[in-house]
Amino acid sequence: MSRAPVAGRASAGPAPGSAGLKPDLQERPVAALPDGSRVRVVIEGLTPEIDAGRFPIKRVSGESVIVEVDAFADGHDRIACVLRHRHEAERDWHETRMQPLVNDRWRGAFTVQRPGRHLYTVQAWVDAFASWRHDLRRRPGDDPDLPPALAAGAQMVEAAAARAGGADARALADAAARIARGAIEARREAALDDALAQLMARYDARRFAADYARELAVVVDRERARCGAWYEFFPRSCSETGHGRLADCMPRLDYAAAMGFDVIYLPPIHPIGRSFRKGRNNTTTPEPGDVGSPWAIGAKEGGHKSVHPELGTLDDFRRFVEAAQARGLEVALDLAFQCAPDHPYVGEHPEWFRHRPDGSIQYAENPPKKYQDIYPFDFETDDWPALWRELKSIVDFWVAENVRIFRVDNPHTKPFPFWEWLIGEVKRVHPDVLFLSEAFTRPKVMHRLAKLGFTQSYTYFTWRNTKHELTAYFTELTTPPGSEYFRPNVWPNTPDILNEFLQFGGRPGFMIRFVLAATLAATYGIYGPAFELLEAEPREPGSEEYRNSEKYEIRRWNLQRPDSLRDFITHVNRIRREHPALHSNASLQFHAIDNEQLICYSKATDDGTDIVLVIVNLDPHHRQSGWLELPLERFCIESDRPYQMHDLLGGARYLWHGARNYVELDPQAPAHLFILRRHLRREQDFDYYM
Amino acid sequence: MSRAPVAGRASAGPAPGSAGLKPDLQERPVAALPDGSRVRVVIEGLTPEIDAGRFPIKRVSGESVIVEVDAFADGHDRIACVLRHRHEAERDWHETRMQPLVNDRWRGAFTVQRPGRHLYTVQAWVDAFASWRHDLRRRPGDDPDLPPALAAGAQMVEAAAARAGGADARALADAAARIARGAIEARREAALDDALAQLMARYDARRFAADYARELAVVVDRERARCGAWYEFFPRSCSETGHGRLADCMPRLDYAAAMGFDVIYLPPIHPIGRSFRKGRNNTTTPEPGDVGSPWAIGAKEGGHKSVHPELGTLDDFRRFVEAAQARGLEVALDLAFQCAPDHPYVGEHPEWFRHRPDGSIQYAENPPKKYQDIYPFDFETDDWPALWRELKSIVDFWVAENVRIFRVDNPHTKPFPFWEWLIGEVKRVHPDVLFLSEAFTRPKVMHRLAKLGFTQSYTYFTWRNTKHELTAYFTELTTPPGSEYFRPNVWPNTPDILNEFLQFGGRPGFMIRFVLAATLAATYGIYGPAFELLEAEPREPGSEEYRNSEKYEIRRWNLQRPDSLRDFITHVNRIRREHPALHSNASLQFHAIDNEQLICYSKATDDGTDIVLVIVNLDPHHRQSGWLELPLERFCIESDRPYQMHDLLGGARYLWHGARNYVELDPQAPAHLFILRRHLRREQDFDYYM
Repeated sequence: MSRAPVAGRASAGPAPGSAGLKPDLQERPVAALPDGSRVRVVIEGLTPEIDAGRFPIKRVSGESVIVEVDAFADGHDRIACVLRHRHEAERDWHETRMQPLVNDRWRGAFTVQRPGRHLYTVQAWVDAFASWRHDLRRRPGDDPDLPPALAAGAQMVEAAAARAGGADARALADAAARIARGAIEARREAALDDALAQLMARYDARRFAADYARELAVVVDRERARCGAWYEFFPRSCSETGHGRLADCMPRLDYAAAMGFDVIYLPPIHPIGRSFRKGRNNTTTPEPGDVGSPWAIGAKEGGHKSVHPELGTLDDFRRFVEAAQARGLEVALDLAFQCAPDHPYVGEHPEWFRHRPDGSIQYAENPPKKYQDIYPFDFETDDWPALWRELKSIVDFWVAENVRIFRVDNPHTKPFPFWEWLIGEVKRVHPDVLFLSEAFTRPKVMHRLAKLGFTQSYTYFTWRNTKHELTAYFTELTTPPGSEYFRPNVWPNTPDILNEFLQFGGRPGFMIRFVLAATLAATYGIYGPAFELLEAEPREPGSEEYRNSEKYEIRRWNLQRPDSLRDFITHVNRIRREHPALHSNASLQFHAIDNEQLICYSKATDDGTDIVLVIVNLDPHHRQSGWLELPLERFCIESDRPYQMHDLLGGARYLWHGARNYVELDPQAPAHLFILRRHLRREQDFDYYM
Repeated sequence: MSRAPVAGRASAGPAPGSAGLKPDLQERPVAALPDGSRVRVVIEGLTPEIDAGRFPIKRVSGESVIVEVDAFADGHDRIACVLRHRHEAERDWHETRMQPLVNDRWRGAFTVQRPGRHLYTVQAWVDAFASWRHDLRRRPGDDPDLPPALAAGAQMVEAAAARAGGADARALADAAARIARGAIEARREAALDDALAQLMARYDARRFAADYARELAVVVDRERARCGAWYEFFPRSCSETGHGRLADCMPRLDYAAAMGFDVIYLPPIHPIGRSFRKGRNNTTTPEPGDVGSPWAIGAKEGGHKSVHPELGTLDDFRRFVEAAQARGLEVALDLAFQCAPDHPYVGEHPEWFRHRPDGSIQYAENPPKKYQDIYPFDFETDDWPALWRELKSIVDFWVAENVRIFRVDNPHTKPFPFWEWLIGEVKRVHPDVLFLSEAFTRPKVMHRLAKLGFTQSYTYFTWRNTKHELTAYFTELTTPPGSEYFRPNVWPNTPDILNEFLQFGGRPGFMIRFVLAATLAATYGIYGPAFELLEAEPREPGSEEYRNSEKYEIRRWNLQRPDSLRDFITHVNRIRREHPALHSNASLQFHAIDNEQLICYSKATDDGTDIVLVIVNLDPHHRQSGWLELPLERFCIESDRPYQMHDLLGGARYLWHGARNYVELDPQAPAHLFILRRHLRREQDFDYYM
């Protein structure tokens, strides 16, 4: 594909109703004659496009955008079609020629690098020279219309010469002369010259060019938006005694880094409210010394821009971020836009909260549930511009402290236009900032949040446990249109969710859910050390809340426990790092296996050099076996050649032949993480696998 | 559904950035804060909508438009959702409440009557009273928040009373008082009163209401746009001797009316060019007396607004139209926007045609094919406004002569914007005018023409002959989104197309193709008498052109031939008229039958009172039999009750039980046209069928 910068400009051709009008017609009203009346090309059905261009698609640096459109004109003229794209800060379009597929469909592609917002659209026009050339090629040698046709072509080439400059202009003028005069067959040969066709394409006047109805946007993020392993922990539990401080967390950072995580996500680190503070296990009767929920933000010590004094100072936080960076870890903060009753905002901006008829402030309620320790903001307040700006200033504050990832708490309880504005404004200045939407709610709401700007989204993964559920859900997550804007960040557990599968599955259950998360999704996270230490007791039967939840109390964790999943996690994270196939979701495919308790899927790089095949036993209690059916063609394996399957988890290597193969998995080692090595055919009589 | 006219108005609420701003904020730029910032409801995913509202959907008078949207707000508030619609000439919206389905999907419907362009859109808002009522219902009796909640509700009802008038205002004020004071349980009961909920819905302030992004259009046509049987013939062949005149056609009109047709479509009736006139069988060497192709329009006697002198005068044409109307027939004319070289336009407006370098006018060419008798218009001419207006004046001329249906010849060789303008302008004044697109071309082009305004479209039916082809094609034609704008008009033959199936299928082949056309599609047509007289000889082997085609010569037809399909056609057309199930395509469903040569499908009215089941033997040479499987549930038949199948073609009645039944069809009577009569269960001991 050629690529050349082209100045952005309006489509050519005189404005309708002006040029060429006879005097008597100019007197009649021309209002009924539409703009673009001589534009003969139609461009429609463009993909990817979200909600008629209302929302951008998403990419990370280095990825490509493959664009398709239906483009056609009346009659049988040939058309030309270009894909145009530019970073929003650039003035000129880059162009690549689109190629025809079948059925009037055209395809083109461009690669994005610079983070930020890029625009793309399509332009097409009737290619007069190509049409003429196509007809010329089909004219018999004795066609009496050959001389006038050649004369018409020579005129076209002359006109292009006038538009060109330098050597190109001379080449075109020469060609025009050769087409205009001489023996018929020599004239035709000159007209059909391929180099001439290329020159003519370059200097096409694009008369009556059609522009696609909309310019579409692609938001380009850095690599971490697509791929990463997250580790969440409560810093206040990081001390041997008393309230842990950020300064106490260095060993925990070492520990997470050693396990191979990329992102450390901290629950809110701000002062915690005292009025209506919740006690252990979410009771409304706290005892002295109960630490309260970090999500009940704000006290006399400060609000969303302050560090909880018992965690340390802002300087301690800065040192924490630096220490994480030094270990290759990035810190993600929690954005929970709500206030404890003693948050400074409540006194300073009572108009930002909803009031009851008696003048008191309405706390959060979803009858019969009550959250007296939380005041939600009233986004319908007349003072909304000040509220919006203040909330954005919280993000700006932490961005200035080198935080570039925010996990947003319950975004679905704040208005959609607010998030679209906030994320857009922050990323306009800092395109490297990532926002994770923690919205466990209805599907349309989750998708809207992703469309309006959230970089990543929590998912229903926790509640998808059977082969059928996992297959349907991850097929949906990894195929367009959803996959164009919704980037899953999957979590087997969170401080709020201890799924039934973990409660009853024992250590194998944790392993199963971990390997699924880490290989089905390029981005996943765990809440630890509860996860690796197999914490599985619910507050009461049927509940998904943890008993003795860290949300309400400090926990001491014995990281050295022999049954810890630490080594298993380390192993899987290492495999993830080493295998680019696992760094994205687009290639995910599920494969048939004749046992409902076994799931099989693969991911591969675009170039096919890295192919990972995962088989998981979904049954935490029993050994399961079955026959799987691999699509050999997809992996470019010839059916009569052996191929090597190297299980990176167990270490074993198998030589497989053909599509059907037997697998068997014990719950104690519930997954194969195979690398597929194709046989390289060589002249020499020994085998290579790549 | 309630329905009340509501004045069109902007959504409520102060403009962003104005009301309630603190002085210090007013000094900061507010440009970055978007409009509609407090609009919390999202409306998306509206259906039906064509290409993001770029094109209208289509209906006929009396049909309904069922609209669905995704609508939701942040948080857990209840929302209200209305469907708004109006004729474009009306100022105020009509509204109907939409009902929630599952997964944040809402549905509403409206019926269209008045022909022309109607608009529809959706409005939704947070329903504060319904949200409050929902919460109130879930509050326990001892909830300490009950009194403040009731006080807040009373305030809402008072505010609504202030917006209402008359008795409603008094009722609301009374309710507010009952909610505000008294015993708690009585207050709650007053608050939860259903009549109050209805009143509150009527006087909802619709604060921060969201309007769907677009107002969409539906073009409403008269009934004939959906359903009709067309008959095409050449008037010049209607005389016993010499060139037939319009005045000679009265017996032919009687004949077509007796067969039960609705529309008479005439090939162009204008003067035919003499220069480069084509001879019999499309030769370029005409003999004296050869009549030429009616599509080579224009001679010294006139052009598109003239009647061929050998057919008669404009008065003769008027009498022809009246005679047709008297027989219940409507006349459709051909619009072929092209000129013979001796058309008056060529001399008067040479700038409307493309010129070769030597100054001569370019005739139609698609090398190596040449059409020297045709000059296409050059729609890229600088004089396009005059050309467009002149072409529209042709339509206006014949509309003034009471022609209301135009079959448009090769619309795909003229620019799309031209047709969109022309059809839009004509229908703006005459919404009863129908345009049939004769575009046998690529699918995207055919669909674009339908989208931009053509009332009906020719189809690929002629080339769809196997069960698989017919099933796939008619499923596509009768399901959204295509069925929202593309109305098929299917023809087993045309003067241009004698399909292979007819060439080799004999009389059974014609019967098969006829019954398929007349029952698969609500609108169909035949080119007669070639069709009913089984004309089957191609110009040469492999050609789809007729030998001795009427396009180039006068034919004499013996309408009394005993093998004529006249009676069969009459019979099928009578069944079509009597059975409303056959008047539309939306209900078409195909049913399983275990023989590839047998096809089975049904159509039913919305209320299920008319159910037609068609079974056709697609093999014109052999008897075929098979077992069919009927979806009894769809037809509301209980599996243990018998039902009657009455074959309207053969006259036989069968009593069937259960889903599986045997059928057998001979090529000489290749179709069953069953009416399905359900058993009515009665107390009495005899059977009724409805």
